[in-house]
Amino acid sequence: MSLDSVLAHIDADQDKAQDRLLDLLRIQSISTDSAYKQDCDKAANWLVEDLQSLGFEASKRPTPGHPMVIGHQDGNGIHVTFYGHYDVQPVDPLELWDNPPFEPAIEDTPNGKVIRGRGSSDDKGQLMTFLEACRAWKAVTGTLPVKVSIFFEGEEESGSPSLVPFLKENVEELKSDITLICDTGMVTPKTPSIVTMLRGLVGQQVTITGPSKDLHSGMFGGPARNPIRVLNKALAALHDENGAVTLPGFYEGVPELPQQVAEQWRNLDWSADSFLGDVGLSIPAGEKDRSAIEQIWSRPTCDVNGIWGGYTGEGSKTVIPSQAHAKVSFRLVGTQDPHKIRAAFQDHIRTHLPADCSVDFIDYGAAPASNMEITHPAFEAARTALSDEWENDGVYVGCGGSIPIAGHFQKILGTESMLIGFGQDDDQIHSPNEKYDLRSFHKGIRSWARILDSLSRNAG
Amino acid sequence: MSLDSVLAHIDADQDKAQDRLLDLLRIQSISTDSAYKQDCDKAANWLVEDLQSLGFEASKRPTPGHPMVIGHQDGNGIHVTFYGHYDVQPVDPLELWDNPPFEPAIEDTPNGKVIRGRGSSDDKGQLMTFLEACRAWKAVTGTLPVKVSIFFEGEEESGSPSLVPFLKENVEELKSDITLICDTGMVTPKTPSIVTMLRGLVGQQVTITGPSKDLHSGMFGGPARNPIRVLNKALAALHDENGAVTLPGFYEGVPELPQQVAEQWRNLDWSADSFLGDVGLSIPAGEKDRSAIEQIWSRPTCDVNGIWGGYTGEGSKTVIPSQAHAKVSFRLVGTQDPHKIRAAFQDHIRTHLPADCSVDFIDYGAAPASNMEITHPAFEAARTALSDEWENDGVYVGCGGSIPIAGHFQKILGTESMLIGFGQDDDQIHSPNEKYDLRSFHKGIRSWARILDSLSRNAG
Repeated sequence: MSLDSVLAHIDADQDKAQDRLLDLLRIQSISTDSAYKQDCDKAANWLVEDLQSLGFEASKRPTPGHPMVIGHQDGNGIHVTFYGHYDVQPVDPLELWDNPPFEPAIEDTPNGKVIRGRGSSDDKGQLMTFLEACRAWKAVTGTLPVKVSIFFEGEEESGSPSLVPFLKENVEELKSDITLICDTGMVTPKTPSIVTMLRGLVGQQVTITGPSKDLHSGMFGGPARNPIRVLNKALAALHDENGAVTLPGFYEGVPELPQQVAEQWRNLDWSADSFLGDVGLSIPAGEKDRSAIEQIWSRPTCDVNGIWGGYTGEGSKTVIPSQAHAKVSFRLVGTQDPHKIRAAFQDHIRTHLPADCSVDFIDYGAAPASNMEITHPAFEAARTALSDEWENDGVYVGCGGSIPIAGHFQKILGTESMLIGFGQDDDQIHSPNEKYDLRSFHKGIRSWARILDSLSRNAG
Repeated sequence: MSLDSVLAHIDADQDKAQDRLLDLLRIQSISTDSAYKQDCDKAANWLVEDLQSLGFEASKRPTPGHPMVIGHQDGNGIHVTFYGHYDVQPVDPLELWDNPPFEPAIEDTPNGKVIRGRGSSDDKGQLMTFLEACRAWKAVTGTLPVKVSIFFEGEEESGSPSLVPFLKENVEELKSDITLICDTGMVTPKTPSIVTMLRGLVGQQVTITGPSKDLHSGMFGGPARNPIRVLNKALAALHDENGAVTLPGFYEGVPELPQQVAEQWRNLDWSADSFLGDVGLSIPAGEKDRSAIEQIWSRPTCDVNGIWGGYTGEGSKTVIPSQAHAKVSFRLVGTQDPHKIRAAFQDHIRTHLPADCSVDFIDYGAAPASNMEITHPAFEAARTALSDEWENDGVYVGCGGSIPIAGHFQKILGTESMLIGFGQDDDQIHSPNEKYDLRSFHKGIRSWARILDSLSRNAG
């Protein structure tokens, strides 16, 4: 039976598959920093060529930002669109990387071999699991089990500004029966997971200006307003003593967890102690009346992702700076409205602003949360295939991260998304020394090979 | 009479005096940044050579940090020690300078000509007013009117770590009848001022560590502690609603202003509106029940001089950082104990520290406030000389800045200090585009020439 041959071919082709991924990881496709625009374009070209080598009708599509990569290949039965992103996070603080982030390598670790490098897990390693599965099907059978369209973007790590316009302009071409998204993780190292709840995201940069120039804190300290102190006070007031966000109306549209889902989550082999212990923490810091897993999967949050102002060099400088800055982001759930929350945040800052200070804002992405309807037969077809590949059965879970594309596919293309990924909690995505388990890469490829087969037989 | 000839010589020699100052300003003697160690040494050598050219027995004295410059020259009657510092503040943010900070130039401004460049006012321009006065006396009379010792340090902008040990080791050599310090300003552009109250300073860097590495705010946002938020909350709690510092015992040793001094300050031609208006502010930000001039001269303050943590580059990065940092300093008055206040600050941070976070501190300078006894005849002799040179009579004032040397001279050498300087509020010391009025430089030189003469006749 061809699935077995395909899986055997995947096992035999592992080394070459790794080499292909390492090639892609060497491209410094940091989308949020305009200095890397050419590298993003290079990653797009690399993918177009690889898709063409797999028999896809593939091309790079320009946008005002980084290009999209689109590919199509015919097949029988169900038509699926696979999504991934070829852009990666910035690498700072660079000094905390053990090896250069864009010189990827296979490493032995106490937990097995890993692929080390920026983007290895988020998301180049993950998207390649699907392409390698297609490569194996083509090599063994000469065709794909289902009709496949490919949609890769290069702006996922910088708010996807071009995504919605592009989707709207290309509805007919991108429409399919279901979307497959490989940008998530597994709830435990041996439990394959299909994410059905995704948090939304709204980001904002705030700059508070006090004095017209930097001042000497001796000559001016006392009567002169310090914008760092104004910013500290406003940001500290974003949370109450119980860890809840204080913005008026913030919890509008935040649903209570259905009893059976809460039950399923409680039964997961998941421990807050080890989840936090792995990153040197021990006390869940979120809303006091919520479990840690709820705090991540089904509760909204607010975090300061960056702050800067005044003298930050070596030694001391007694300055009262003219400006102070912060980057703040909110993770959203249910039907929370990102635009209302952005407005509430700006109001909050303004209410803390003395009359002789001013504030400027820069808007980053604004995406609502996504909740999948799992009634489509593709969901159970995929979950069964995952259960066949892994030690534990596949489960439906939530995800703290924000993958707005799922919501956009729902709204603009009218299709549900299946979020199936093989990342692990310790992959250190968005951090120094990002890695992807070779096990995730290998069994991820095998998982997609099984899913394509299962979809062709059970979701036609 | 020789004073008139000396003043005439000063007027005639102005252009050359400016060129000498510009030479000194070109030396990048930033003491707080070890990258500029050689430049600090170069500035010390420059001063030794200039002192020798004026007939001083001058030499550079090594310290664990930057060298001291010492000079001696005999004269009749009273023996004075003149203090200044050759080191300067860092120059960032560099992009806000209209011209390179170490390429000084004479500029025309609506308020007259200025010398533009880092250190022009704080303190190279000021210390040169005294050397130029000595140069004129030597040129015209061949001698100095009084016995003069010179004491220049190169660590004033970085907490003066070597100062106290050096004073203690050289008491006999540095002891004199009174100290002259030129590192302060004028209360109004036409009112020469002798500072008799100086605020102290204690500085502290704080680093809060939460997670063992940077985290993805989607994967971890909620249960994971964000050290920026911990820092925001702790710093925001340093002040109450009335602008008072909340540290227990902070106001111990803070004296009430004597009625007659408060009266004299009220009568000064000094306006909070214009003081704040010059730097784009309008509302005194300090303790609500204190006037702006009290807030600067006679009240203690706490300011955050720098803060940083997380992603501060272009665009957005949804990270929960491992660490957050701040530089905090306190201005002290009366008999406040800098070491007690440092301890109270560290306790404050620790009480705001969650059990799974850690904190590290770096100590910067700790100097108590200074209050001068103005009974020594040198004070009135100097005030009279200043009144002769300037449009308005000289006045005794306070100063928000911290010049610990005055207190050290009191304690270690047992001599009072006369703080006489010619800086203006708009000199932008510690800020981009620092300047020194040519008027301050010229009349400052003339002032010292008069003071030396007056001291020789009235304070012998």
